[in-house]
Amino acid sequence: MSVQNTVESLAIGAKKAARKLAFESTTRKNNVLLRMAETLQEQKKFIQAENEKDLHAGREKGLSTAMLDRLALTDKVIDAMVAGLQEVVALPDPVGEVDEMIRRPNGLMVGRMRIPLGVIGMIYESRPNVTVDAAALCLKSGNAVILRGGSEAIHSNLALAKVLQDALETENIDPAAIQVIPVADREAVNVLLSLEDHLDLIIPRGGEGLIRFVAQNSRIPVLKHYKGVCHAFVDSVADFDAAAEIIMNGKTQRPGVCNALETLLVHKDIAGEFLPKIGARLIAAGVELRGCPQTKNILVDVKDAIEDDWYAEFLDLILAVRVVDDLDAAMDHIDRYGSQHTEVIVTANYANAQRFIKEVDASAVMVNASTRFSDGGQFGLGAEIGISTTKLHAYGPMGLKELTARKFIVYGDGQIRT
Amino acid sequence: MSVQNTVESLAIGAKKAARKLAFESTTRKNNVLLRMAETLQEQKKFIQAENEKDLHAGREKGLSTAMLDRLALTDKVIDAMVAGLQEVVALPDPVGEVDEMIRRPNGLMVGRMRIPLGVIGMIYESRPNVTVDAAALCLKSGNAVILRGGSEAIHSNLALAKVLQDALETENIDPAAIQVIPVADREAVNVLLSLEDHLDLIIPRGGEGLIRFVAQNSRIPVLKHYKGVCHAFVDSVADFDAAAEIIMNGKTQRPGVCNALETLLVHKDIAGEFLPKIGARLIAAGVELRGCPQTKNILVDVKDAIEDDWYAEFLDLILAVRVVDDLDAAMDHIDRYGSQHTEVIVTANYANAQRFIKEVDASAVMVNASTRFSDGGQFGLGAEIGISTTKLHAYGPMGLKELTARKFIVYGDGQIRT
Repeated sequence: MSVQNTVESLAIGAKKAARKLAFESTTRKNNVLLRMAETLQEQKKFIQAENEKDLHAGREKGLSTAMLDRLALTDKVIDAMVAGLQEVVALPDPVGEVDEMIRRPNGLMVGRMRIPLGVIGMIYESRPNVTVDAAALCLKSGNAVILRGGSEAIHSNLALAKVLQDALETENIDPAAIQVIPVADREAVNVLLSLEDHLDLIIPRGGEGLIRFVAQNSRIPVLKHYKGVCHAFVDSVADFDAAAEIIMNGKTQRPGVCNALETLLVHKDIAGEFLPKIGARLIAAGVELRGCPQTKNILVDVKDAIEDDWYAEFLDLILAVRVVDDLDAAMDHIDRYGSQHTEVIVTANYANAQRFIKEVDASAVMVNASTRFSDGGQFGLGAEIGISTTKLHAYGPMGLKELTARKFIVYGDGQIRT
Repeated sequence: MSVQNTVESLAIGAKKAARKLAFESTTRKNNVLLRMAETLQEQKKFIQAENEKDLHAGREKGLSTAMLDRLALTDKVIDAMVAGLQEVVALPDPVGEVDEMIRRPNGLMVGRMRIPLGVIGMIYESRPNVTVDAAALCLKSGNAVILRGGSEAIHSNLALAKVLQDALETENIDPAAIQVIPVADREAVNVLLSLEDHLDLIIPRGGEGLIRFVAQNSRIPVLKHYKGVCHAFVDSVADFDAAAEIIMNGKTQRPGVCNALETLLVHKDIAGEFLPKIGARLIAAGVELRGCPQTKNILVDVKDAIEDDWYAEFLDLILAVRVVDDLDAAMDHIDRYGSQHTEVIVTANYANAQRFIKEVDASAVMVNASTRFSDGGQFGLGAEIGISTTKLHAYGPMGLKELTARKFIVYGDGQIRT
């Protein structure tokens, strides 16, 4: 079969499966998720044998130790997948939920009922656990999913899909509800992105290059974020200790993720006092500082920040630092260089906190907290399928609800329009 | 200036205006709307003189009387625009509304705040009142708008835009918040659809041809519906009088609109009794019936329905009629031929009503009510900017809320992630 035919027949199957999955009860979906957890454990040997094929090929290809580590489906990783499935069981099912029910003057009852989106395409480069996590969230929200992981993980992903499909079959659910594209050829992605009549949403996860490729080539709506250039602004009146903790946490707790802190903005009135304190801590923690001229006047051991540094998602122990005149200058900087991901103000000034919350255009805007909280789990969504930094449909971390839509439902007793 | 430069500079201006408009208070926005209503009345002579240019050109081009009527900005039409503006003043402002505020175990307060989408492009063929209605709804929801009406109405639309911009300027709001594209060349639409960095959403309104053109050529997300192939299914147990009223209302009250009834499905057990009654009334009202073989066995004066009739949005006094075996057959028919617009069941059977509500995939699903209620105003949204029959972002009639997004807002007191 050609790549076109292979992917298209997957998508046709997924659409058919989605139509039935949309009406499955929460109990049935939870039973499938629990069965999936059991089957993962039962078939661990098979999964690990298939994973070993990917690891072997990876070693031959000279993948880095870090990449091989990310690829390895150790006992611990599989246990984490099982725990993840059990957590999804515990999440409330958004499907069928009715809200905003109102009674119209003519007696019509009009409300909105949550329904699945249909078929979701996940395109990712990440470790194979995304295969199981994404499949679980899509299933719980009543959506079918077509998964396309990195070519270096194809045996692992196909093995995981096989195991998940076994669980679906045992519970009499169409196994086409969860499918991994079986061809490594990149052409498969192009085909998938063209199937606008069969897929309802594409969620890409990975580097900026992958995401731009998907966004530019998709005929299907895409929810995505390119990068996280997150700022913290320390205002002229602020608790310096809290500010320092928030900055250290944002920059050093996990520098390689999208909600890490990338640029520090400091009010000019307190820069002379605050920057030496935080500068010393950052440098002691191995953070390279790249500062504006005013920052360099205050701190030693600071490189010149060039224009590109203000746009940069370093994903590393590097921090850009700029002294700004006031709140407006800070917000102007964020507006110009930000990525609409996560923005923080550290302040004791009530009015400035409220202005920052209201006026900053980002998917998550925070007062006196670390950028690292910008996450579906931390925000109470229960899980996260991705993050959107565009405003249509979802803005910010996306959980189960963001995998659903709402239809209007109307209960009448014979009303006609006059 | 080239068309490219003209449209691009409009869009750059709109984006700048949108950034400020996003934070305007409800009071300011309402004052602008009231000022717009006043200015429309004050400048009625100017508007009607410009409108006369379009009417003159239309007569020269041989436009039908119906089309010229739609184009004419009579005193009555302008009064209706004024009343529309006053109604938008009365609607609640969704911007700044915070909901789902929760307290996380670490004390963080996490909520969602409604914000405008940014810049909205409206592309329409309809009468010039859309220019004022859409501008008002976009302004109230804090969005800038770029309007592109039909070339036959360009003088009228530019005159209306000029009047609205005068009102914006009087109230010290950037007039670039409301702009009509000043070139009739269709190339302007292509340029607009390519400006993904400046526009956030496109809403096309008009015939299926226009909408397909927009959907296929846009780099910007599009919210749309192609057509409304709305069904009513009369179940085996149903109030025949109510069913007849609902069918007559759906088909004859205003046949040319998207929520008119196009196909009647009748349960086989009651077809012999019900069809003759409703058939006589429909035929008496001048409705042409196109039926399946079973319908033809029961009724005379029925044409053969061909396959295309089941897909058809007649927008006319024509009704397709099919006898079906049961609820499942009715839902299968709707699934196959429907347009995900509006679907109705007329039934006295509780379980069937609930199954229909739950299982039918359409943006509006109703029990015992006319399809004609599928409308933003009738559903209590206060106004309607369009209807979406795809599930992302909005499904069904769209009001002010559907012109907004939600960002996460977080109030902390120094929390860091561990």
